[in-house]
Amino acid sequence: MYFASDNAGPLHPKALEALTRANEGYVPGYGGDDLTARVQDRIRDLFEAPDAAVYLVATGTAANSIALANYCQPFQTVFCTPLAHINVDECNAPEFYMGGGKLTLVPGSDRMTPDALRATIEGEEVRGVHGPQRGPVSITQITEYGNLYSLEDLHALTAVAKDYNLPVHLDGARFANACMALGCTPAEMSWKAGVDVAVFGGTKNGLMGVEAVVMFDPDKAWEFELRRKRGGHLFSKHRYLAAQMDAYLDDNLWMTLAQQSNANAAHLVEGLTGAATIRNEPKGNMVFFDVPRHLHQKLQAAGAMYYLWEGTFEGDDPNEMLTGRLVCDWSISQDNIDKFISLVKAG
Amino acid sequence: MYFASDNAGPLHPKALEALTRANEGYVPGYGGDDLTARVQDRIRDLFEAPDAAVYLVATGTAANSIALANYCQPFQTVFCTPLAHINVDECNAPEFYMGGGKLTLVPGSDRMTPDALRATIEGEEVRGVHGPQRGPVSITQITEYGNLYSLEDLHALTAVAKDYNLPVHLDGARFANACMALGCTPAEMSWKAGVDVAVFGGTKNGLMGVEAVVMFDPDKAWEFELRRKRGGHLFSKHRYLAAQMDAYLDDNLWMTLAQQSNANAAHLVEGLTGAATIRNEPKGNMVFFDVPRHLHQKLQAAGAMYYLWEGTFEGDDPNEMLTGRLVCDWSISQDNIDKFISLVKAG
Amino acid sequence: MYFASDNAGPLHPKALEALTRANEGYVPGYGGDDLTARVQDRIRDLFEAPDAAVYLVATGTAANSIALANYCQPFQTVFCTPLAHINVDECNAPEFYMGGGKLTLVPGSDRMTPDALRATIEGEEVRGVHGPQRGPVSITQITEYGNLYSLEDLHALTAVAKDYNLPVHLDGARFANACMALGCTPAEMSWKAGVDVAVFGGTKNGLMGVEAVVMFDPDKAWEFELRRKRGGHLFSKHRYLAAQMDAYLDDNLWMTLAQQSNANAAHLVEGLTGAATIRNEPKGNMVFFDVPRHLHQKLQAAGAMYYLWEGTFEGDDPNEMLTGRLVCDWSISQDNIDKFISLVKAG
Amino acid sequence: MYFASDNAGPLHPKALEALTRANEGYVPGYGGDDLTARVQDRIRDLFEAPDAAVYLVATGTAANSIALANYCQPFQTVFCTPLAHINVDECNAPEFYMGGGKLTLVPGSDRMTPDALRATIEGEEVRGVHGPQRGPVSITQITEYGNLYSLEDLHALTAVAKDYNLPVHLDGARFANACMALGCTPAEMSWKAGVDVAVFGGTKNGLMGVEAVVMFDPDKAWEFELRRKRGGHLFSKHRYLAAQMDAYLDDNLWMTLAQQSNANAAHLVEGLTGAATIRNEPKGNMVFFDVPRHLHQKLQAAGAMYYLWEGTFEGDDPNEMLTGRLVCDWSISQDNIDKFISLVKAG
Repeated sequence: MYFASDNAGPLHPKALEALTRANEGYVPGYGGDDLTARVQDRIRDLFEAPDAAVYLVATGTAANSIALANYCQPFQTVFCTPLAHINVDECNAPEFYMGGGKLTLVPGSDRMTPDALRATIEGEEVRGVHGPQRGPVSITQITEYGNLYSLEDLHALTAVAKDYNLPVHLDGARFANACMALGCTPAEMSWKAGVDVAVFGGTKNGLMGVEAVVMFDPDKAWEFELRRKRGGHLFSKHRYLAAQMDAYLDDNLWMTLAQQSNANAAHLVEGLTGAATIRNEPKGNMVFFDVPRHLHQKLQAAGAMYYLWEGTFEGDDPNEMLTGRLVCDWSISQDNIDKFISLVKAG
Repeated sequence: MYFASDNAGPLHPKALEALTRANEGYVPGYGGDDLTARVQDRIRDLFEAPDAAVYLVATGTAANSIALANYCQPFQTVFCTPLAHINVDECNAPEFYMGGGKLTLVPGSDRMTPDALRATIEGEEVRGVHGPQRGPVSITQITEYGNLYSLEDLHALTAVAKDYNLPVHLDGARFANACMALGCTPAEMSWKAGVDVAVFGGTKNGLMGVEAVVMFDPDKAWEFELRRKRGGHLFSKHRYLAAQMDAYLDDNLWMTLAQQSNANAAHLVEGLTGAATIRNEPKGNMVFFDVPRHLHQKLQAAGAMYYLWEGTFEGDDPNEMLTGRLVCDWSISQDNIDKFISLVKAG
Repeated sequence: MYFASDNAGPLHPKALEALTRANEGYVPGYGGDDLTARVQDRIRDLFEAPDAAVYLVATGTAANSIALANYCQPFQTVFCTPLAHINVDECNAPEFYMGGGKLTLVPGSDRMTPDALRATIEGEEVRGVHGPQRGPVSITQITEYGNLYSLEDLHALTAVAKDYNLPVHLDGARFANACMALGCTPAEMSWKAGVDVAVFGGTKNGLMGVEAVVMFDPDKAWEFELRRKRGGHLFSKHRYLAAQMDAYLDDNLWMTLAQQSNANAAHLVEGLTGAATIRNEPKGNMVFFDVPRHLHQKLQAAGAMYYLWEGTFEGDDPNEMLTGRLVCDWSISQDNIDKFISLVKAG
Repeated sequence: MYFASDNAGPLHPKALEALTRANEGYVPGYGGDDLTARVQDRIRDLFEAPDAAVYLVATGTAANSIALANYCQPFQTVFCTPLAHINVDECNAPEFYMGGGKLTLVPGSDRMTPDALRATIEGEEVRGVHGPQRGPVSITQITEYGNLYSLEDLHALTAVAKDYNLPVHLDGARFANACMALGCTPAEMSWKAGVDVAVFGGTKNGLMGVEAVVMFDPDKAWEFELRRKRGGHLFSKHRYLAAQMDAYLDDNLWMTLAQQSNANAAHLVEGLTGAATIRNEPKGNMVFFDVPRHLHQKLQAAGAMYYLWEGTFEGDDPNEMLTGRLVCDWSISQDNIDKFISLVKAG
């Protein structure tokens, strides 16, 4: 019953096989190999973006931070939500990569609204040279709280950004889950919706550690390469990043895995409904649920693994309501899901 | 009727005379002169802090940013209010000097409350290595909105910081105005209240451009000197910074000027009372007042200079209420204050 | 005949098997898994350093840059040779990670001499606050030019550093090759020789992409973790870094692979002797040799892959002498080496 | 006999008078005042550059570092000489402002030669994404060692930079001395000679602390303003920077002062000739001379103030030859120069 994160399970066997297949002979390092070129082409095809610049890095923090630094000057500020991964979970990596840039938080719920975004943008650059200058808008799809933007939502947000000529970054650590939940194409969820640079994540969806950064206007491609290198994120044995991504694209594995994760979460939601309050609209692979402390302790004792988003394990009041985060990856078994549901229902 | 800022008026004649007096003969550069040493000693005396490290820089942004960088690692975050000068008026200077550090905003009013500070601190470092680490607490006295912390307020805020072993920075661009408003000593408003590093501002109180950074624990003195130098803020002809500060200390000029500024503001408040709503508790030298657009336009036409904090000069509704900021420096004449009051009363 | 780099060949089958073995079940991310803890312990054992802090990253640039940033303030400078990887091959990554620190080049040959190091250190900090302050000494073992420091050499260099209380960083991208060439233990080549932080490289010696950073004084361990995270180098699926390193340590695979690489280079040197001038003292796995342009063109046409260190493929003079770099990894076959030798001998 | 630096003497009375004159009434801060606009226009006139962007800062380190940061990406490197102020005397300020950029040293004498510059540029960017990318060429006129580039020299150097499309920065802390020594106009020594951004220094030539940064292509003007602000170098009471510069331009005071400084140095050289070896070609205001230790000690005892460039005050051998640096500002009296000469001649 491992719902702690979608980085806790095994990588999909086909990704592992791809590594084995790639492990033959001699190839140029640093992305100069044929497999990397092939994968870049395939991602351009997938995104219906023949001119896009595509690069692979091994972590989501690197993907986001280098991408943002490529579109944000150090005297500018990035607009994001308070819960955004780049704000709370990257230990100032964006600020570091941007050379001292800033994040301006768009207040409100987990999902950024166009009105709140517009008001926040309007609140910057009111002091001329004195204040931070407006920089990129960063949207997380699916959000950290497991919520989904519809295509209309995305269009509305990027329209605001475009009103101010601001570039749009999409943190797509769970890009695939979102695409499957929306039933749309990668193009529809990115450049067709006004996104300038998207992270097409693989790590949380069955790969070992690889994220593709896709810049739809290739003007800043070389700058990205330099920023990647000076961040220490240009892999010498780059073929092994490429191989994972290649497997991910074969037979739409990325879709299959995301569908499976989403279905696992849906199964969980279905089972928990009535037994527990669900706090988010779980259309992807994450479910936030309310759980009284005594039950939480019982679940953990029974081997259920998940993080608390609110509250603590220890506490005086056994009936205090806590909030737990359940993340389903592709590999979680139906049995374990059912077992977890039964435990919750048993109370 | 120049209420735009306390940096718009002339410097006090005694500061100018001090520059003239200092302009004799040859002295070592970069702060190696006797006058600088003398001023450092005088500030240590003033703050009753014989071990303090004292340095002069020419701008408030430099004073704040270098001070913060000296106490904040790049993977940490500074706690301040949303309205803090370091957040809205320094174009990412703190983030730049800290090497990519962050500011975490303590929500609430212009004045930080101990509860809000504690809750905000508690909200950081809940994710181990993933999130920003807790760094200094930065307090602005007098605040950007012209409000004053009492000594009790300061003690309560620094007590929270000490609970987490966080250093406390005091942005004292208007340190003198605050001291006079509180009727306390510099020591009482700084180290005795739990402040670790204070900016003792002179620029907004009648000097040309000089701020003293006072670090009560001298352990980080040399690091400050290096950070000042690499920021380009070590003046070669340092005696001219020192001379201003020397004049500032003579016969307690800093007190006289701040008392005068505060008295000017009090006079303004007295006159406006009944005629306009005052938005802050103006105990220092800044008054925020509500003004309908038509009156604002009339005041500007009559030569009154001040910035709007809310609203715009142009607008459809002549009766829309705007908020203006009136700043009094030492030099503003009673006649001009009275003239302004009359204009407001005339409506 | 692939001598282009030791990052061009396949990873050793045992490393791949280890990845497969690690791909079971659910484990905590970000290095919180048992395998990571086990590998850290094994490296502490290998280095006979029970208190050392040990961390894994995926690239050599990350290992060097984060390690240097952990020991170098932004107002300091790192002492290294002009040919050092950190100077010429990391696109300012050290300067970036250090937050604007500097590299001061120790003049002379590829191998730093104690006298040159001392003279260079003496040349810094002669201007007080004005110049860069002395920071770490960075030594590359084996050097970029394939040369080896003896243990005596290392002791002599670190003794100079200690005279100035400067920490010593060892860029050990080819740590294993050096150890095998010297016939010494990792401890003897690191802390026993005065090294404070060593990179124990795996990527160039048969792994996919993993380097261990070993800090013999664990005081700065937490700071390293934070710097790693904010660099985007904390892997969520950390077990796959650990698995590679675990395989590397099993049955001393790191030794076997390095011995094989070194033996391959020795075989190459033996064969080339008499037929070509060798430019370095090739005790590790790199051979720099002189080759006239016409022969270079012929070798490339025959499928030999290596980089030129001096000169260019195209040129007017077919007899102009160029310098090529031949790097042997563990996997290069004797047949290919012999074939290459024959081609050179044929002229 | 104060030859320690051109920052040790008093500022010229006319600069002080200008401060007094400027100290009237109320003006907008941060450079929004009329005097600042007027001074910017006058500098554009002086440089015959009607489109140039002109900004004032208070220190040379700020002028150089912000200017370089405006023209150098963090993954690039600046070409300068080993003795350049930006390399040895700014405590990593350029690296800091550039966000982790680098300096590449052009080997050779104090004066950069076109051949050495070309060879050094050629030595960078030979490794694609791996190495630092080529950035600005920085030339110091007059050099740190008191030497002068002829206009032909400057043309030759900037021609090399233009061959690689690299911008050219001129560190003109002693711009006026150089202009007077060459008998040329500011335009001839800057944009007409291929310079893109020049520092027109005032601090070392009789002002209190002000340097003009002149960018001949105004495209990056706004970026400069933001970088200046976030460096803490935008003065609120900007009129006092402008006033100094205004006085500097009145009746060509900048020329008069530089001519006087240069004449003082020439007088010194004339007197020392025969009595001491002069180490540089002193066409500006700096003279480097050889002095045996016993004489150096005697000179210092007699009240002569200057820095040693080579050697130390204390030492075993009274006859060891040291090198001293003598800097003449406009204010040094003929009597003191003659007295110094007599002391040297007396031996």
